[in-house]
Amino acid sequence: MNIRVRHILQFVLAFAAIGVVHADEGMWTFDNPPTAAVQQKYNFTITPAWLEHLRLASVRLNDGGSGSFVSPDGLLLTNHHVALGQLQKASTPEHNYVADGFYARTRAEEMKTTDLEINVLMSTEDVTAAVSAAGRTAKSPKETLDAREAEIARIEKESLDRTGLRSDVVSLYQGAQYWLYRYKKYTDVRIVFAPEQQMAFFGGDPDNFTYPRYDIDFAIFRVYENGSPIHSEHFLKWNPRGASENELVFVAGNPGSTDRNDTVAELQTERDVDLPTSLAVLERRLKALHEYASRGAEQAREANELIFELENSVKAYTGELQGLRDPSVMSKKVADEDALRQKVESRDDWKATYGSAWADVSKAEAARRKLYDAQRFTQIRGSELAGLGLRIVQYVQETHKPDAERLPGFHEAQLPSLRMSLLSPAPIYVPLEEALLADALQESLEKRGPDHPFIKATLEGRTPQDAARVLLGHTKLTDPAVRKRLLDGGTAAIEQSTDPLIVLGRKLAPMAKTMHDTMEREVTGIETAAHEKLGQARFAVYGTSVYPDATFTLRLSYGSIRGYPMNGTLAPCKTTFAGLYDRSASFDNKPPFNLTPRFAVARNKIDWAIPLDFVTTNDIIGGNSGSPVVNRNAELVGLIFDGNIESLAGRYVYDETKNRAVAVHSAAILEALRVVYDAGPLADELAPPTR
Amino acid sequence: MNIRVRHILQFVLAFAAIGVVHADEGMWTFDNPPTAAVQQKYNFTITPAWLEHLRLASVRLNDGGSGSFVSPDGLLLTNHHVALGQLQKASTPEHNYVADGFYARTRAEEMKTTDLEINVLMSTEDVTAAVSAAGRTAKSPKETLDAREAEIARIEKESLDRTGLRSDVVSLYQGAQYWLYRYKKYTDVRIVFAPEQQMAFFGGDPDNFTYPRYDIDFAIFRVYENGSPIHSEHFLKWNPRGASENELVFVAGNPGSTDRNDTVAELQTERDVDLPTSLAVLERRLKALHEYASRGAEQAREANELIFELENSVKAYTGELQGLRDPSVMSKKVADEDALRQKVESRDDWKATYGSAWADVSKAEAARRKLYDAQRFTQIRGSELAGLGLRIVQYVQETHKPDAERLPGFHEAQLPSLRMSLLSPAPIYVPLEEALLADALQESLEKRGPDHPFIKATLEGRTPQDAARVLLGHTKLTDPAVRKRLLDGGTAAIEQSTDPLIVLGRKLAPMAKTMHDTMEREVTGIETAAHEKLGQARFAVYGTSVYPDATFTLRLSYGSIRGYPMNGTLAPCKTTFAGLYDRSASFDNKPPFNLTPRFAVARNKIDWAIPLDFVTTNDIIGGNSGSPVVNRNAELVGLIFDGNIESLAGRYVYDETKNRAVAVHSAAILEALRVVYDAGPLADELAPPTR
Repeated sequence: MNIRVRHILQFVLAFAAIGVVHADEGMWTFDNPPTAAVQQKYNFTITPAWLEHLRLASVRLNDGGSGSFVSPDGLLLTNHHVALGQLQKASTPEHNYVADGFYARTRAEEMKTTDLEINVLMSTEDVTAAVSAAGRTAKSPKETLDAREAEIARIEKESLDRTGLRSDVVSLYQGAQYWLYRYKKYTDVRIVFAPEQQMAFFGGDPDNFTYPRYDIDFAIFRVYENGSPIHSEHFLKWNPRGASENELVFVAGNPGSTDRNDTVAELQTERDVDLPTSLAVLERRLKALHEYASRGAEQAREANELIFELENSVKAYTGELQGLRDPSVMSKKVADEDALRQKVESRDDWKATYGSAWADVSKAEAARRKLYDAQRFTQIRGSELAGLGLRIVQYVQETHKPDAERLPGFHEAQLPSLRMSLLSPAPIYVPLEEALLADALQESLEKRGPDHPFIKATLEGRTPQDAARVLLGHTKLTDPAVRKRLLDGGTAAIEQSTDPLIVLGRKLAPMAKTMHDTMEREVTGIETAAHEKLGQARFAVYGTSVYPDATFTLRLSYGSIRGYPMNGTLAPCKTTFAGLYDRSASFDNKPPFNLTPRFAVARNKIDWAIPLDFVTTNDIIGGNSGSPVVNRNAELVGLIFDGNIESLAGRYVYDETKNRAVAVHSAAILEALRVVYDAGPLADELAPPTR
Repeated sequence: MNIRVRHILQFVLAFAAIGVVHADEGMWTFDNPPTAAVQQKYNFTITPAWLEHLRLASVRLNDGGSGSFVSPDGLLLTNHHVALGQLQKASTPEHNYVADGFYARTRAEEMKTTDLEINVLMSTEDVTAAVSAAGRTAKSPKETLDAREAEIARIEKESLDRTGLRSDVVSLYQGAQYWLYRYKKYTDVRIVFAPEQQMAFFGGDPDNFTYPRYDIDFAIFRVYENGSPIHSEHFLKWNPRGASENELVFVAGNPGSTDRNDTVAELQTERDVDLPTSLAVLERRLKALHEYASRGAEQAREANELIFELENSVKAYTGELQGLRDPSVMSKKVADEDALRQKVESRDDWKATYGSAWADVSKAEAARRKLYDAQRFTQIRGSELAGLGLRIVQYVQETHKPDAERLPGFHEAQLPSLRMSLLSPAPIYVPLEEALLADALQESLEKRGPDHPFIKATLEGRTPQDAARVLLGHTKLTDPAVRKRLLDGGTAAIEQSTDPLIVLGRKLAPMAKTMHDTMEREVTGIETAAHEKLGQARFAVYGTSVYPDATFTLRLSYGSIRGYPMNGTLAPCKTTFAGLYDRSASFDNKPPFNLTPRFAVARNKIDWAIPLDFVTTNDIIGGNSGSPVVNRNAELVGLIFDGNIESLAGRYVYDETKNRAVAVHSAAILEALRVVYDAGPLADELAPPTR
């Protein structure tokens, strides 16, 4: 499955710490590792040197996943489904690396990616004092937010200028803390190996987010700098035996987002508005995608990645919605909230400082519900290409303002990564974009009616199909050089452009700004302030042994390899290659349970008893895809690629009895490389044979 | 798992037809087969000849299961877990046929069972008119019941005398119909083959009642008459290829009991009183059993079968209780009941005839709840041996009365099977019986207090441990010859006996009679009358396209081989031998997932892609264990041995989306016999090689 991070939301989300930590719960920052808990429960001492090594061997991928260095020469291990976007972009009608896999037998054959950025976390610094001070004299939540955004932009810019490192200020513990994270950035990343998607994603959508599982969901990149592979001692040594049942293991990765500290009012909006709407949108878009894919083999190839991603989201959201609709989950959240509120109200000073937060959030949530459709359905959606026009217009408009006054995402320190994204040379399939844009515009029309300014500006009296055809048929933004000229041409270039997407972008930019300001005034500004109070209240009540909600930044989780009770019986802590052949034969080798020819042929050569996948109690979520699983010696024993179906409620609450992370076993990758893929030299580079 | 019939209850249960039949639902009598539904849904015509052949090839085993003839020379196929009791009885401290399996390479080696009775249904006859007429002039429900029981005893006796066939009157459709079932009876049944219990019950209690599954749960007997194997053309031809996905299949077997037509008031008693109490009793007894088994290898061997049976019950009851606690199940039952009541109340004649039934049942259920503990905990429980004393005393007392006045179970036509059971030479493990009796007595003491007459009579001031030791240590009833002398010695022998169990039996007999009469007056008499009205009301409202609740008599179910949605993904319609090896390796070959040496050795010889188990939509329940699965040609394609966890709520409601019967595949049995067990000749006798 795809446990990559969700698309980053337009509006800043704030996160906060959960009250009391039990069991193997928690996605811990490297600044506040769960040292005491691990010492007590597993008798293992987390040392600063151990932590530093693991941190420097761990990476974040801008495609929304995690990974790790696994050789002194820059080999990088992640999931196939994290690499999928790059494999798709590298493919052509002639070479389908997604379907057929890829193996570079020499360094010369290693294949450049187009727009993959790798981040290694170099340092972190608490900047709470400076950010908090910035809003102190403001007269409204919105003014506070603006002032803090300005201060954050200043800190990021100053850090970038001084260190040359990517510098992001991260809001942790629901805004009770702000931290400056500095990353070393790599952009020359080459594809070394990928299995066929069918084997990486064996079982397809049905098996996605479930276990027992039989997927070999890995891919290998090599990271270059100045034209040569990087060299570093900070890589994870490959342990070809993996880890045993009940053994302590750690996961280092970048969980995208959790809602563990959301108030009940927020969860109710999620349950009643956000998730049902998102599911309806996704189902609709999937229908359009399948229609497009049915037109022919090339169309199917083009649509493949997005179908994968959207089906993945449908399954994840469905599980989350079931979680929120489970009375036991919601009553636990209500009880947790009541407990904190009672503590806060038991002391006058706490009550005065934090007591209003819940009511404030409820008020903001009422506004969010009211604004929900207006905000969601008056944006360009469905088509990446169609969205480029507005983003280029905004880029030019915003970068002409002082950094402090810009919209989020356009601050000085954010520009390098933004430009990389806007100028990506990745192929664009215009007919696919057109089908999706037409569907999204039709949906907006149905939701907002023909007289809405967004609809008028976009359709200009045409049908959604016609509008999509004209907008995408006549634009020149498919050419990265055209985009670059517009980005660098300043206001004049934007004003003079007759490109239909730029013309549309000019009309939509003020609407987007108005909507952003409205949301900030009525929802996000209020909630940011209230969340900060809630985060501070938790520190006051429960002390510092808490972890923040996930923020797609580096976290450490601990746990052990353990099966769990499942559907009346036990799920084992691991599966084997025999299970892969069983499941395939059980479905008569029909898709999505078919074996590729390579795996079918290997049936009598492969050691069927070798572990394939395994489960751990580690607390992870989307964004952890590709995270290394390491043992006490920080050796690589597995590769996170999914959570079980029971883990989907983990967005809201962790349950050690059945919440499991699913990983590929280190031995399975070596066996597949050597026996199935004739890639012994790569296996040897990963796990040098002992002499 | 063990889907054998539950122990027959002391009080007559009445059964009735469900309102509207959907999908592949139903356990149909051979008199009223689902001809129209099968024709319409599967385009197959059930003919009388086809039905007769299947009926005559199907058998019921008095150990609580089903089976079928699978050769012209009397080979009988059933489940290992149905044969388990006989394998246990045939075993000794030197030869453990349960653990090690058994194969008779020659007919001379075929091993006699001690007390197995096989019934083949020869004819059925509607006797409703006679039975109903019997109670017509009675003045109370109890009098009606007594009069009908007398008439039933008369019919059975008359039929037995006239035909020599075992003759049972069965109450169907909640007593709206009574049928006389005549059986040909075989008691010379010999063991031909059994695999090791570990392979038949691979996965043990965890995998019991679940799927996907990897059990080879079969055993083979041969039925003899007059010292020679029987010969018959009515056997099922073995189809070595089995059946395909979505193929129509039938199951002929003896489902034990269902509660599909229970009123909501009855289900509430089951949910709130009966199942929770039964689970507490079972857990307690299992604790005592495990304590006993821990004393040594021989004790473990002795306790094995009962542990299996009790764990099986715990799992089944737990699933049933979950079903009743599932709001969607109970609200469906409420809706069904409301629908029928509204129909009944819509016509004055129906209302007058049937309208009081629900209130009557509710009143009886209130009495049942009040009497529940008094009835349940004032019986000799736990020990088969200890119960023999009372049963022998009752046998002598009752058989001296006119047939019509006897307690249920002691009527003339029931005596042959009763005597076979009372005189069984099967080994009795006294220390095991003692441990269980002590535990049950302790429980009764806790529940009813030291001053209750039952407790006083049983303990006589001793501790439960001391009482159990003395009662079982001094009795001579372990010897079948002693029992026979008492049974045949008449009142004098009983009165003069100083055997402690007979002495106790004399004291308990009047108490048991009083309790029986109380229950009949306050509960069963009222409910039998009310159920009859409900059954008739269903016929009036819904017509005759309904099936009766299960009664451990021969039924036909239809369905197809189909996977189902499970725990977020799909369960395949079949598993393979590869899955067996996967599951074993996944648990590091630890019990209950360990392979026996024979199967471990066969790893490289067996064809791993051969189907092992499969699932069908057929509607079955405990008692169907060992039932044949046949195709349109009435060829054997599989062997029912379990239901999935989702089927446990099937006691109350059938759900085609996920209720599945689990069967061993016909090909798996042949492969195991030939490749694993070196039993090629037996495989050839079952499925003669085509020339």
